[in-house]
Amino acid sequence: MAKEKRETIPNSQATRVIPQGKLLIIGGKEDKGDTPEREKEHNVNFISEQILKRFVEELKGENPLVVVIPTASRIPEETAQDYLDVFQSLGAKNVQVADIRNRQDANKPEYVELIRKAAGIMFTGGDQLRLTAIFGGSEMLVAMKEQYAFTQVVIAGTSAGATAMSTPMIYEGESEGGYIKGDVRVTTGLEFLKNVAIDTHFLTRGRIVRLTQAICTNPECIGIGLEEDTAIFVTQGGNVEVVGSGLVTVVDGMGITETNIYDIGNGQPFTAKGLRMHMLGNGDEYVVPSYMRFQLQ
Amino acid sequence: MAKEKRETIPNSQATRVIPQGKLLIIGGKEDKGDTPEREKEHNVNFISEQILKRFVEELKGENPLVVVIPTASRIPEETAQDYLDVFQSLGAKNVQVADIRNRQDANKPEYVELIRKAAGIMFTGGDQLRLTAIFGGSEMLVAMKEQYAFTQVVIAGTSAGATAMSTPMIYEGESEGGYIKGDVRVTTGLEFLKNVAIDTHFLTRGRIVRLTQAICTNPECIGIGLEEDTAIFVTQGGNVEVVGSGLVTVVDGMGITETNIYDIGNGQPFTAKGLRMHMLGNGDEYVVPSYMRFQLQ
Repeated sequence: MAKEKRETIPNSQATRVIPQGKLLIIGGKEDKGDTPEREKEHNVNFISEQILKRFVEELKGENPLVVVIPTASRIPEETAQDYLDVFQSLGAKNVQVADIRNRQDANKPEYVELIRKAAGIMFTGGDQLRLTAIFGGSEMLVAMKEQYAFTQVVIAGTSAGATAMSTPMIYEGESEGGYIKGDVRVTTGLEFLKNVAIDTHFLTRGRIVRLTQAICTNPECIGIGLEEDTAIFVTQGGNVEVVGSGLVTVVDGMGITETNIYDIGNGQPFTAKGLRMHMLGNGDEYVVPSYMRFQLQ
Repeated sequence: MAKEKRETIPNSQATRVIPQGKLLIIGGKEDKGDTPEREKEHNVNFISEQILKRFVEELKGENPLVVVIPTASRIPEETAQDYLDVFQSLGAKNVQVADIRNRQDANKPEYVELIRKAAGIMFTGGDQLRLTAIFGGSEMLVAMKEQYAFTQVVIAGTSAGATAMSTPMIYEGESEGGYIKGDVRVTTGLEFLKNVAIDTHFLTRGRIVRLTQAICTNPECIGIGLEEDTAIFVTQGGNVEVVGSGLVTVVDGMGITETNIYDIGNGQPFTAKGLRMHMLGNGDEYVVPSYMRFQLQ
């Protein structure tokens, strides 16, 4: 059931919340022996165990419930089964699948209830636009944000599931190169992080240019590029720790001194000078600026 | 001077603020006898006097300072001069121009100071991407947000200046029709309103489809389409009053029951069912849902 009415509290003074929950945002990793189609949709087995072990270790409570959300995938049953297997092998036995395929599902009380009981939530890979178009404004997303604010839930996402966690959310750039203006499409993500653009498969697919382009359109935002087999573990809404074998690239545009992003037409290359960049490895820490932190809506 | 370092306050608890300032967001209006190039850049004379009179009437204090920001325009001197003339004729005599052309200017203390003294700020038309790429993360924008939060400043924008006021910000859709997926580009705006997409010249240019498409990518956001010669006057961060001769169209996607936005490739038409829409005229009121309200960063 779609909501019939938005709730409005015209003069409320909501307090910005330092979330007690945690995020595990994973850069994805494909099997190079797989077919391209299956690579895109079906990469669960290839996330390094280091990262998923961390997920399981961080779960709180006895026999903690993990909810797998395969909504981004076009083969949700297979994708979910892979996670059931992986978590089983890592010792997390209490795993349920929320096989949400449309906005009606995302508002169903039984799924909202499942989220409220979850100690961990896992968004699989696929297409991030499915996640925002289906969960945006839904009761399940409200429940996830409340869990994230007030409980120690761990919310994880890989590939598309990682990209959708923050606003702005990049999707479907037409070319992998991305140096042509207009390749990068952006919308509002699920917003567990704000003013952060996350890109995945970062070095493998050479996405530094498309991330930088997204940042140049508004340097208030920072970009975080995650290599495959690499994740960030986020506590207190913005304290970042790198986990995994690869690098995390942070692109900060606040110091941009020159850019032609507003002077060129679509299809032309863009330039930008004065960007700041950080490359971080396993165990490194980074603090997301405070004004980018989570707000309970 | 570009900032050298972002400030971080890792564990702050910032309170969400109901702004004391006001917004006047204007749909633009071109002179049909003008050339297309000049229409785009040079539309100040054609905003109805009703709307700019309202701007002047709302200014607080004695001999209130109005700061005109022509940064969106490619002919900033001419555009600014038009506003100097218009405000003069409407009785606002104390008008200064902040002719900001790059990020260095947007961080200069003298301009920050000017913003802190302003009773009114006017963003002209032009290209909204210039506004976000130049003001995003700047000291001037910080000053504007503080003024908006804690003083009775009136911040106005027309056409591009209107579109840039909120996040998500639509820019440069390739076709005016906009029914093809991929036409709509979005980035983070200056964010005096959040989770609101503003589109201008709304009925004249038939932009309902591009606005709807932007909303479908994440139905957490609402869309506000402003016809020419029409504005919304926003108090308390989200109480909207319509001013002017035309209509305001509100598109709310929370009730979407079906959409193919994530199933189709670029270049294909998209569909969506279950949208809610409001059409509002002069004097009508609308309350932006509370979770979309302004937050001082």
